[in-house]
Amino acid sequence: MTPQPLIDGLQYANWSEKIFRQMREGGVDAVHVTITYHETFRETVANIEQWNRWFERFPDLIFQGRTAADIDRARDTGRTAIFFGSQNPSCMEDDIGLVEILHTLGLRFMQLTYNNQSLLATGCYEDDDTGLTRMGRQVVVEMNRVGLVVDMSHSGERSTLEAIEHSSRPIAITHANPHMWHPALRNKSDTLLRALGETGGMLGFSIYPHHLAGGSACSLQSFCDMIVRTADLMGPKNIAIGTDLCQDQPDSIVEWMRVGRWTKAIDYGEGSADKPGFPPMPTWFQDNRHFGAIREGLAAAGMDARGIDGVMGANWHRFYADSFGPQVRS
Amino acid sequence: MTPQPLIDGLQYANWSEKIFRQMREGGVDAVHVTITYHETFRETVANIEQWNRWFERFPDLIFQGRTAADIDRARDTGRTAIFFGSQNPSCMEDDIGLVEILHTLGLRFMQLTYNNQSLLATGCYEDDDTGLTRMGRQVVVEMNRVGLVVDMSHSGERSTLEAIEHSSRPIAITHANPHMWHPALRNKSDTLLRALGETGGMLGFSIYPHHLAGGSACSLQSFCDMIVRTADLMGPKNIAIGTDLCQDQPDSIVEWMRVGRWTKAIDYGEGSADKPGFPPMPTWFQDNRHFGAIREGLAAAGMDARGIDGVMGANWHRFYADSFGPQVRS
Repeated sequence: MTPQPLIDGLQYANWSEKIFRQMREGGVDAVHVTITYHETFRETVANIEQWNRWFERFPDLIFQGRTAADIDRARDTGRTAIFFGSQNPSCMEDDIGLVEILHTLGLRFMQLTYNNQSLLATGCYEDDDTGLTRMGRQVVVEMNRVGLVVDMSHSGERSTLEAIEHSSRPIAITHANPHMWHPALRNKSDTLLRALGETGGMLGFSIYPHHLAGGSACSLQSFCDMIVRTADLMGPKNIAIGTDLCQDQPDSIVEWMRVGRWTKAIDYGEGSADKPGFPPMPTWFQDNRHFGAIREGLAAAGMDARGIDGVMGANWHRFYADSFGPQVRS
Repeated sequence: MTPQPLIDGLQYANWSEKIFRQMREGGVDAVHVTITYHETFRETVANIEQWNRWFERFPDLIFQGRTAADIDRARDTGRTAIFFGSQNPSCMEDDIGLVEILHTLGLRFMQLTYNNQSLLATGCYEDDDTGLTRMGRQVVVEMNRVGLVVDMSHSGERSTLEAIEHSSRPIAITHANPHMWHPALRNKSDTLLRALGETGGMLGFSIYPHHLAGGSACSLQSFCDMIVRTADLMGPKNIAIGTDLCQDQPDSIVEWMRVGRWTKAIDYGEGSADKPGFPPMPTWFQDNRHFGAIREGLAAAGMDARGIDGVMGANWHRFYADSFGPQVRS
């Protein structure tokens, strides 16, 4: 029996040889990495240039992933395939032509919003969610055409429901958890998760402590029980992992994520004035070497082997295979 | 016997459905098109976006070429493969990381200079040619690494000789003619052409009237006799066509080519105050439907069938196959 792949649906670490080696130690076949939080197109390209340096410098550890076949190639060659994504449509500026350009450069996920209102939709921290904008509807069609996945992890409820409905291909919430388990603003309602699952969309479970019941103290058992419940809600093929691991990042980075250039004030996002920095990760997941604990936790929570394989990578593999190529018109 | 491909090594037309259909009528399998004369990176990307619109709108006529295999695909599907090139390194600005980015976006040729001194080398219109700059030497290594061809069509003699020597892969002069035949500043010396041929480099013969003996009145016989003589000088496998066809362009475009944003004055380039615009093309080559005339002219000039096939496309095909992929280290 061919072992199933191990795929993480979101990371934004302070990348280094150490982390790339930990990916190999942990047997991670593919990771969707964030390359943009607030960057313009040109700044996003500069970030890709930095990744190209890493690919050139560490060819035995990592390479750029473009298709699901690259996950298999990563397994066959003992490396990790790195797939690019943007948490903000800032990278495409006001130019729909950049959707295809960014896809050609390897972008495979793009959030329509990052917390705030964007040109395309409403972020989860705005008071009023007005849904997809005129431009947002056009951009979703273009993303569908070229094979750039709509990611609504940081969007408001109405915008997300409209994206699910408007998109002709399944969308993703790469890193969030159910609101029923932990009522953070970023976590998602049952209504939304059900609609996501019914349309073939994917949820990646986040281990960012602000998304966890109990925060940094959340137990592995609580996390895995939640996954089993969500499998019942969404279906076992529509769930996966999206750790949101921000390993080795200084607190200045969480501030950049939160305020970018859009405000001169401090915004604490999911944190608070007394806890402005990165919260510590749970003891059971510190870095890429610890995915085995989740696998064991899911077994302890009663999930069968096939379900576990799906959550740990097979579901992302199938979704990548269906999502990253040009749209096939029936 | 499989018929050989028909490839044009340079065009910069005012692109339209009419021209794309003429390519099909003329049986043109591949064209290297200029996407940048003076544009910055972002402006170059906007030009690629425009090409993406044409690819989406005319999928039965054209598609973007990336590898030599796309030439065969074009033949098999009755279309023309469009390969991108830049006549100016302005597209990579001062950022060596953009070499790989542009290659990923499909750029396959980049001139190190366009007439003037650049950050990389000296153009053919400068008084003093100081050869490759410090940055130029680094960029040539990077272009070699990723598979972006060094094109020296508009460079000075010393810069070109240094590029030939410094480049670890064969370079190209996509559109120029021998200086011995017509002593224009843009045409190339025997010394240079011999060095180009000895290193496996390519010359594409230009039909831009300022590069022709007799200008617009140049006869087909004179042009083809020159090709036969150049085959003796450089070898029959190192020569091809690079028409420099600028079909349907208004004179404002030739002015943009010549002055860009680098001067407020008028520079007439290869023209003159009394002839500032595009000169008329020779009667025997008006557009993409007329490559057959060159084939016939070469036969009349005494070239054998294999030599003619080489000039008309087989030589570019081989060069594309050897040049567009990552460098293989021996």
